[in-house]
This record gives sequence, C-alpha cells and structure tokens, in this order.
Amino acid sequence: MNKFDVYEEEFFVTTEQILSFSNSTGDTNPIHLDPKYCEGVRFRTPIAPGMLISCIFSKIISTKFPGPGTIYREQYLKLSSPVYPGDKLIARLEVDEIDEEEGRVSLKTTIKNGQIIAVEGAAKVFLAKVFKRPSKIKQKNLTNKNKEFKV
Amino acid sequence: MNKFDVYEEEFFVTTEQILSFSNSTGDTNPIHLDPKYCEGVRFRTPIAPGMLISCIFSKIISTKFPGPGTIYREQYLKLSSPVYPGDKLIARLEVDEIDEEEGRVSLKTTIKNGQIIAVEGAAKVFLAKVFKRPSKIKQKNLTNKNKEFKV
Repeated sequence: MNKFDVYEEEFFVTTEQILSFSNSTGDTNPIHLDPKYCEGVRFRTPIAPGMLISCIFSKIISTKFPGPGTIYREQYLKLSSPVYPGDKLIARLEVDEIDEEEGRVSLKTTIKNGQIIAVEGAAKVFLAKVFKRPSKIKQKNLTNKNKEFKV
Repeated sequence: MNKFDVYEEEFFVTTEQILSFSNSTGDTNPIHLDPKYCEGVRFRTPIAPGMLISCIFSKIISTKFPGPGTIYREQYLKLSSPVYPGDKLIARLEVDEIDEEEGRVSLKTTIKNGQIIAVEGAAKVFLAKVFKRPSKIKQKNLTNKNKEFKV
C-alpha cells in the first residue's frame, strides 16, 4: 500500500437495507422511512441514512483496502447531498499518508452519486499487524494495554 | 434547544447486532466476528464495529435530540478504545452551537464505556424545518434545489 493508491467500488442502497438499518440501529427518522412525511420535504421521497451509506467505508477498509484485521481509528463524514434508494454510487478511498512501520494509514474517503459528491471525508486506520499479540514470552506486563487503542 | 443542552442515553451492543450489522453492511472484519482470530490480537475477543456503536448518534439525533426530521450534515468520530458486546455505554450529545433562525445545530458527541472514552466526536445537523417544502405558491423555481443540502 502506497501514498496515492486508490480503491473504488460501485454500490447502491435498497429500501430493504434502509429498513434493516432502521431496525438494527433504532434510527426511525421519517425522512428515511415515511413517504407521506417526505412529500412535505424538499427531497420529496425517502432518502438513505448518511451513516448507512458511509458504512461502505467500514466494509472496504475491513475487507479490501487495507483488508481484514484493520482497526478503524477515525472517520470524518460530510453528507453533502441526498442519496435515494437505487442511486448508483461510487465509493473511493485514496491513501493520503502511510507509515508502514507504525502501521498507520490516512485515507481520503468520498462517495459520488453520478457527478455529485454525496459524501466527502477522511479516515485513519491501524494496519492489522499493530494489534497482533506478541509471542507468549513477550506477553508479560501487556495486560494494561488490552483496553486501549493507543500504540 | 439551547447551547449547553445535554442528552444522555445508556445502551449496549449485542453479538446479534454485530452479526446483523455485518450482514447488512458487508463489514466481515474478523476482529468483530471471529473469536479464533481474536485470540491472536491484543483485544482477545471480538470487538464491536465503531460505525455500529456510532449509529447511536444517528438514532438519538433522528428521534430525540433534536428529533424526527432532522437532517444529518457532518459527523466526526474518533474511536478511542475497544467496545465489547454487552459493555454498558453512555452516549452523550451536547449542543455546542445553535442558530435557531438558520436551523443549524453543532453537537459534541461522545460515548463513554464506564470511565473510559470509547468514542469522541462532533456532529452538525439541520433542524427539520430547514427542508420543509414551502406552500405551493412559493414552490416555483425550487426544483433545482431538490438535489442539494445547501440552504
């Protein structure tokens, strides 16, 4: 992984995902769920929750870029425009800074909806190796560190 | 709603919620799901996804503080320490700035896990009234604004 490396993935959210997100998080905002309410709002029909769309970053970071075992440290999100179910979205992650030795990576994170920026932001992650346990001989006196992300 | 107003809510996440989050987002990080993998990691057992825990802010903003119809605009999250299923968490939202006329609210958002800060951050939201549609007479020439959050 190097500075300026880019990973892109096309995706969309469905009404079913929005319902599932609402059920599992308790976010019952009518702006996401209630077509009647939305008739009286500028967006006209229900829009996807920003946190649901943004979970694509969690997915990509955890599975592809950098990959399994990565630890999420920071995420900034600016929800710039509404996303409707079925909109064709492209998530883009770009390596902004990387310290391979310390295992720290900063990423620019954006989601485009056609030509419009839907989400812009940035993430910081630790590579999986940072939290791997040392061999048993080295494990003494490390128990206090179990509850902290700091390295 | 006034500057310094605070809303707090106790919650926890379950292993079932982590599985549901993984299914609906595709975040299959072994750090959240695989006890065997976690034996080799400093946290020892699976930890909750930061984005899942942080969805408590989406829930509270959308249902209580400010309430239904609120539009999420920005969220910064710093995931400071691991959260395990069943940990007793307290989400705290405090009004940092408010412009009632423009309908803009800035919030400090934190999650405590006992005495430890698990998540710190900040959010910006628009009050529901900002995106309410004007009466039909005033709706002419507003169609271009339907795809934008800017007000």
